[in-house]
Amino acid sequence: MKKVKPALLKGFDQEYLPGEQLQFNALVDLVRRNFELYGFLPIETPSAELKEVLTSKGGTEKEIYALARLAAGDDDEAATRGALRFDLTVPLARYVAMRERDLAFPFRRYQIQRVWRGESPQAKKGRFREFYQCDIDIIGREKLSSLAEAEIPSVIYSVFTKMAIGDFRIRINNRKVLKGLLQAQGVADAAAPAVLRALDKVDREEKAKVVQDIKREGVTEAAALELFGLISDKRDTNETLQMLSRQAANELLAQGLAEAKDIVAAIRQFGVPDSHFAMDLSVVRGLDYYTGTIYETTLVGHPELGSICSGGRYDDLASYFTDTRLPGVGISIGLTRLFSRLKEANLLRPLERTPAEVLVTTLEPKYLERYLGMARELRAAGVNTEVYLESAKLKNQLAYADRKGFRVALVAGETEFNGNVVQVKDLYNRKDENHPLDRLVASVRDLLSRSRKSD
Amino acid sequence: MKKVKPALLKGFDQEYLPGEQLQFNALVDLVRRNFELYGFLPIETPSAELKEVLTSKGGTEKEIYALARLAAGDDDEAATRGALRFDLTVPLARYVAMRERDLAFPFRRYQIQRVWRGESPQAKKGRFREFYQCDIDIIGREKLSSLAEAEIPSVIYSVFTKMAIGDFRIRINNRKVLKGLLQAQGVADAAAPAVLRALDKVDREEKAKVVQDIKREGVTEAAALELFGLISDKRDTNETLQMLSRQAANELLAQGLAEAKDIVAAIRQFGVPDSHFAMDLSVVRGLDYYTGTIYETTLVGHPELGSICSGGRYDDLASYFTDTRLPGVGISIGLTRLFSRLKEANLLRPLERTPAEVLVTTLEPKYLERYLGMARELRAAGVNTEVYLESAKLKNQLAYADRKGFRVALVAGETEFNGNVVQVKDLYNRKDENHPLDRLVASVRDLLSRSRKSD
Repeated sequence: MKKVKPALLKGFDQEYLPGEQLQFNALVDLVRRNFELYGFLPIETPSAELKEVLTSKGGTEKEIYALARLAAGDDDEAATRGALRFDLTVPLARYVAMRERDLAFPFRRYQIQRVWRGESPQAKKGRFREFYQCDIDIIGREKLSSLAEAEIPSVIYSVFTKMAIGDFRIRINNRKVLKGLLQAQGVADAAAPAVLRALDKVDREEKAKVVQDIKREGVTEAAALELFGLISDKRDTNETLQMLSRQAANELLAQGLAEAKDIVAAIRQFGVPDSHFAMDLSVVRGLDYYTGTIYETTLVGHPELGSICSGGRYDDLASYFTDTRLPGVGISIGLTRLFSRLKEANLLRPLERTPAEVLVTTLEPKYLERYLGMARELRAAGVNTEVYLESAKLKNQLAYADRKGFRVALVAGETEFNGNVVQVKDLYNRKDENHPLDRLVASVRDLLSRSRKSD
Repeated sequence: MKKVKPALLKGFDQEYLPGEQLQFNALVDLVRRNFELYGFLPIETPSAELKEVLTSKGGTEKEIYALARLAAGDDDEAATRGALRFDLTVPLARYVAMRERDLAFPFRRYQIQRVWRGESPQAKKGRFREFYQCDIDIIGREKLSSLAEAEIPSVIYSVFTKMAIGDFRIRINNRKVLKGLLQAQGVADAAAPAVLRALDKVDREEKAKVVQDIKREGVTEAAALELFGLISDKRDTNETLQMLSRQAANELLAQGLAEAKDIVAAIRQFGVPDSHFAMDLSVVRGLDYYTGTIYETTLVGHPELGSICSGGRYDDLASYFTDTRLPGVGISIGLTRLFSRLKEANLLRPLERTPAEVLVTTLEPKYLERYLGMARELRAAGVNTEVYLESAKLKNQLAYADRKGFRVALVAGETEFNGNVVQVKDLYNRKDENHPLDRLVASVRDLLSRSRKSD
């Protein structure tokens, strides 16, 4: 038969072996569990939306995949009017606008789903065309307290502390402060977005290049240098707030500074220690969409990973769909990218628990019912158990157990059953012991609780 | 501003409110947990695959959605060569063929992901264009014991027993038995697939119509009537096996019957009671792909739901991709459809636990730190807790709590804090009690453990 070469599409290639998939799923579960601890509720939205919904905000058409029929077929709305979502924010806006009357506000939702972007895939940099995003947003109706902005870092803190992937910093800034600083340096409002995009690169590009980019927007050299210094100089949170207090104030800067001070104080009340967050003027964020606090999160000692969790406060989520003003604040974790980088940097923790916990080996077919009985007993106690069902030598069954990562193998034949015992093999530490059959569950549980690899 | 109407694509419309989403997620978790208990390992595959991979087996082109760029853009492999998967079996075949050397066989995998099919959407019948499938398969290399076929019903039994959606029957049959019966009635091999498709409808169509369809394939009226009777008469498992033993045997029927007897005996050993499974000749399955045991699962008293879990044994999973013969057995639960039908039939259980467990109301801003402290304590104990962060009257905060489905609200102001107590409101049973602040976690846990709605 002519064969088709089994291969993946470029950028649609983050596919894992089962062991890696388990590690990935453990991260998803951890993120989800933490979001739920803070009272966020889950939603999922369809993968494909109406094109006019996805493009309502504009500026993203180039990245969107549309649907088409593979073969000419019946009329199909999805194939003519549908496209894949490129983020979880536009679907959220559509969702809230559609279901406003059914939701309780502030609406706190989390969403962990795949998104698709027709970007140039650079696998090395962890950019993919299909990837998971984990988003939370708090959406108010007509109003939203700035305390919501202060709560977000406590959720980020909870997630990454429990993920135990090393020391991290939640870096925050305020868009009003940034725009106030630009105003103070005489930057025209129309030039502000471009100047902010240039300033967003202070950590990655040469000073000369950034200053050049700012000047190109009609800003004087002195002002460009001043802005570069303000943004790039390293200060702690209190120094930053003091420095801002000393700046020649305009109304916007004063307002932003007051907001930032309140939010910094509240973040501390929310229990995030100063060791893990900082007001940092070099956090800029590209999107013009943000209007208050903005967030980035970086792993200390791993600047190459970039921000692993970003977002901000916005004034109106769904202005393209509804007249109701829906101010909100949200963050997103790009989990596929994070996972890929953590794997590369060897920062993933080993799993606490795998579905492959106990393998019941089978020596003689006549004992099948007894093997199955052991498995049933263990499963009833919540222990993941597989019975080896092929006919194979014990040696080969144990090789299979090792290959698949089982922790424990049970071995029993005539001798063991006559003595009412079972041989319990600790596959991580290479030890065997006979245990009474009527204490099977207790023996296995005891072993599982201590059978971490000795190294 | 000109508004875009927020709406969903037809067939891409199974989107839930958070409460429903929680119920759906609880089903996914239950299915996943049961698959893992039996030692199945998770994989996920990309949503889009190469077109030649998806169409390798043929016959499904009409249902496939291809990808395209929304706007003319850079060259993009996905937009020219990619399409969305329509099931989880073809991606599994591609996965195993690609990763044969990295997997341990028998390979037991589960996969819970969305698939896309450009069928005519009939929302009323629970057919959608985007839906979840939950699959398990056991794949052998070159060989696979028939015990694997006997194990599958025990997994189905475990899943639906724990789902507690009512009485169900796992109905099995054997393709060799079916084809042997056809041979015995003189049905030509070439006509067998069409005759089986006709017989697949004995439960849904008039006898005259089925017999007519069979005769059209060149079968005599007497033979068609005989087949109709064999397939549609109701017998229990033992009666079916006895009846088959009495049939004029050909080699295929004899082989199928021997297999079926062994597998029925093994299913009983695997712990599935006769009350919940039956050998049933009216289980036919449309696909020619199956070669041994085939499975359907129906809810007793709800024939309108159709089969909620189906599958079978096949001889070779990935013949289009590799020369290695990969026999396997698998089943699939169409979870989106099942959920939609269970909802309609009012068979969904209420949730044991929601992310919205405790709302800490906030009476005075000066106590923010104390409110946050209570929340931190509860979260550390694993209790999902939200702090109400807007300024609003207590009445409105409690209305929000009710709307969102919280079980408990905590209320504390000057009086309570001075007395070192907190008012614990049972929102389901409308009872309030003051509890000492230093016993907060115990009091809340106690209430959560008994605060099911009294009705």
